[in-house]
Amino acid sequence: MSKDDGRRIWMVGPPGRTVVATDSDGAVIGTANMYANRGGPGSHVASASFMVDPERARQGAGRALGEEVLAWARSSGFRAIQFNAVVETNAPAVALWRSLGFNVLTSVPEAFEHPVHGYVGLLIMHRFL
Amino acid sequence: MSKDDGRRIWMVGPPGRTVVATDSDGAVIGTANMYANRGGPGSHVASASFMVDPERARQGAGRALGEEVLAWARSSGFRAIQFNAVVETNAPAVALWRSLGFNVLTSVPEAFEHPVHGYVGLLIMHRFL
Repeated sequence: MSKDDGRRIWMVGPPGRTVVATDSDGAVIGTANMYANRGGPGSHVASASFMVDPERARQGAGRALGEEVLAWARSSGFRAIQFNAVVETNAPAVALWRSLGFNVLTSVPEAFEHPVHGYVGLLIMHRFL
Repeated sequence: MSKDDGRRIWMVGPPGRTVVATDSDGAVIGTANMYANRGGPGSHVASASFMVDPERARQGAGRALGEEVLAWARSSGFRAIQFNAVVETNAPAVALWRSLGFNVLTSVPEAFEHPVHGYVGLLIMHRFL
C-alpha cells in the first residue's frame, strides 16, 4: 500500500481528527481516527477507529489513543461515544474500553470473519460523556 | 437540493444497489439503498437505508423495499442484514422490520435527536439469511 493509499483509507480531516501514538524514540506504534458516528440528528455521538502495531502491544498505545479520543469528543461537545465493531475475541481491547468507561450494548452475532476463530461477534460499545 | 446532490448523497453503485418503489401511476413513493455494512472481514453482512414519502405512508412501499433488500442480500450471498439506526419511536418501521424477520439487538441510548421527542434511542436490528 502506498502512503497516499494509506492516507486516503485511514486519515480523517476536520471536524474529525487522526492522531498517532509514538514511543520515546518517536516511532509510530499506533493510530486512531475520530469523527461523528452519523450526520444530522445523530451527529452528537462520536465514534473512532484504532490500530496498534501488534509487535508493540501492551505498551500503552491503545490506552493513550482511547484517552485522546475521550478528550477530543468531550472538547468537541459530543454527548456520547459509540464503537461499532469491537471484535469480541479481542479481550485486551474489550478490557481496555471497559476500563475507560465503555459498556457493551450488544454483540452482533457472527459479524466478523476472524482468521483463526471463524465467524465471531462484533461488540457495540458505548459510553456517555 | 439539486438532482446531482441527491444522487451523490443517496445513490449507491455496484456492488451495492439503489431502487425505488412506485405507485401504479409510476410516481416514486419511496427508495432504498443496499450495500455491505463493512468491508473486509465484515463484508458478509449487508445493510440498507430507506426513505418513504410521508404522504404516501401505509401504501406498502416500505414492505416492498424491505423485501427487495432481502432478495438482493440473499442473491448476493450475504449471511445476514444489519440495520444500524432504526429510530425507536418509529413504531411502524420497527413493526415492519420485525414482520420481515428482524430482531432488535439493542437500542443505542439517546443516539437520535428527534424533532418532537428529543433524544431517543436508535435500534440496531438484525436477521440472518
